[in-house]
Amino acid sequence: MSSHPAPAGAPSPALVFDTLFAYQRSAALRAAIEIGLFRALGDGPGDAAALARRCSASERGTRILCDFLTVQGLISKTDGRYAHTLTSATFLDPASPACVASTARFLGNPMIQEPFGRLAEIVRAGCTVLPGHGAVEPENPAWVEFAHSMAPMMAPMAAPLGSIALDGIVGPVSVLDIAAGHGLFGIEVAKQNPRARIVAVDWAAVLEVARANARKAGVEDRYETRPGSAFEVEFGGPHQIALLTNFLHHFDPPTCVRLLRKVHASLKPGGRVAALEFVPAEDRISPPMAASFSLTMLATTEAGDAYTLRELEAMYREAGFAGVSGHPVPTGPHTVVVGRAV
Amino acid sequence: MSSHPAPAGAPSPALVFDTLFAYQRSAALRAAIEIGLFRALGDGPGDAAALARRCSASERGTRILCDFLTVQGLISKTDGRYAHTLTSATFLDPASPACVASTARFLGNPMIQEPFGRLAEIVRAGCTVLPGHGAVEPENPAWVEFAHSMAPMMAPMAAPLGSIALDGIVGPVSVLDIAAGHGLFGIEVAKQNPRARIVAVDWAAVLEVARANARKAGVEDRYETRPGSAFEVEFGGPHQIALLTNFLHHFDPPTCVRLLRKVHASLKPGGRVAALEFVPAEDRISPPMAASFSLTMLATTEAGDAYTLRELEAMYREAGFAGVSGHPVPTGPHTVVVGRAV
Repeated sequence: MSSHPAPAGAPSPALVFDTLFAYQRSAALRAAIEIGLFRALGDGPGDAAALARRCSASERGTRILCDFLTVQGLISKTDGRYAHTLTSATFLDPASPACVASTARFLGNPMIQEPFGRLAEIVRAGCTVLPGHGAVEPENPAWVEFAHSMAPMMAPMAAPLGSIALDGIVGPVSVLDIAAGHGLFGIEVAKQNPRARIVAVDWAAVLEVARANARKAGVEDRYETRPGSAFEVEFGGPHQIALLTNFLHHFDPPTCVRLLRKVHASLKPGGRVAALEFVPAEDRISPPMAASFSLTMLATTEAGDAYTLRELEAMYREAGFAGVSGHPVPTGPHTVVVGRAV
Repeated sequence: MSSHPAPAGAPSPALVFDTLFAYQRSAALRAAIEIGLFRALGDGPGDAAALARRCSASERGTRILCDFLTVQGLISKTDGRYAHTLTSATFLDPASPACVASTARFLGNPMIQEPFGRLAEIVRAGCTVLPGHGAVEPENPAWVEFAHSMAPMMAPMAAPLGSIALDGIVGPVSVLDIAAGHGLFGIEVAKQNPRARIVAVDWAAVLEVARANARKAGVEDRYETRPGSAFEVEFGGPHQIALLTNFLHHFDPPTCVRLLRKVHASLKPGGRVAALEFVPAEDRISPPMAASFSLTMLATTEAGDAYTLRELEAMYREAGFAGVSGHPVPTGPHTVVVGRAV
């Protein structure tokens, strides 16, 4: 967003100032979602005065916010009238089925925001400044918010994950869905295989959200919930498939191995575990979103990380899995890491 | 930083997630400056363990922070060792004369940060939620921080501003420097014209910083300070030049006109005012940094704005100035707006 012209060939501080001001981009988009700007743009283009009326906001605030969002490329402006771009119409207007605006609520949650305000302290200490066990503190209410608001970010990855997890399996199948959250992943497997039965594990308050989603998807009769810590609750089984979505990154490798052993014990011989993870390349600096995710784990957990495929394979092997393979999801920044119980 | 692959031609939510996560970029850079990472990199490339020792920080925190900064392009990583880029060596290493790292202190100041955490509320209300008059509350200590930390961001613009303000003037000249801050602009004029005398106006605590800088520059004997509000303090004079740097944007147009009239009254006939301002084009969405600056004024002031050249010209004329012209500064995002007292 910067413009610090410099003599040709001379270094420019533009990237430094862009980075120092980047927090304003997040704040502006969150504010626009909160005042209902993208819903208002769905009623048609308008100038600042018209949009301010639709949002019950001030004209000065609306004009300045809309100009800023236009500079960011999120909306457009022509002859003083603002309009949706394809991006905002698709992903920010609540009338769109692909709208991801709700994710701003989880991403603006104090559990996420506060540690980033104290990041130097966290880098010095090497772990979160959140109380208790941080993000994975038992019954942390942030995960109810996650279950309510993050489904639209995860939805595009459900179908690929389901296909990979079910690959080659026909007929009745028992599926353990650990840290089910919104429940979308287990529900997708139940939709892809009409004889699949799902056992969902998460905190009780989170499972209420998952169960409501299972009901909406018409699979509630094949949907069992087991509230409690994934490290303590009885998994039942034996299962053929275990889903571990966005979960391992919260823990250090020994804790991951302990959990994977418990998962292994709940699987039939030849059963498989399918984790959905941010998996950076061995250089840990690519691809950008997977590599960047480690910082959120530094900020919010005691010892979590985005693990490379080699690190995950070592944990899987130690826990009794073989044939470990990584499957980048074409519709998102995640990778499905599959292992076979031996 | 994102990577949400999508089918060719299909819209992608990448920009939306980039924007929602952008605050992490600012937090990471601020943390790196605070722990002394760029000073440590100045001692030579190192792996996470070596840099952690140099910064007295944890290895986990240092590794994850350095990987994140590498993804952002701020530093580099080769075979597990991190090193300066040309950008970080020039603008972030405190050993570099062009280092702008101190600006992170002002940009991370509560006066700036807190309103951005309540931006929806501000857009609804149309003005800052800061107490009193916000950024321009009398004796606001944020301006002492500004004077101490923001000089490196402004320094590249001092020489062009000085040349434009002095253009065609030789011999003794009296220069009024309103909202002097760090004092760099008036000091630069004193350096360019050895017979210039500067009268600097700002809050008393801020003028201490300006006076110390004038002493360092060897122009203290031609440097007079007048503490107080620019709207109330006696400007002295008559002056030939008035500098108004980064000041008008804090106020609404009638208040700007009132101040410009007071400036006009302190100038000799034919004297000139030279304002350094973020001046967006008439579309208010370009150039990016000037257009984006209005959001900071929305967040931190009651009625300030980044004004277009046409708006500034109208205010200048109403206050008695003529021959108004805009001069974009080649070394920064600002424009010098000059007017002649008639």
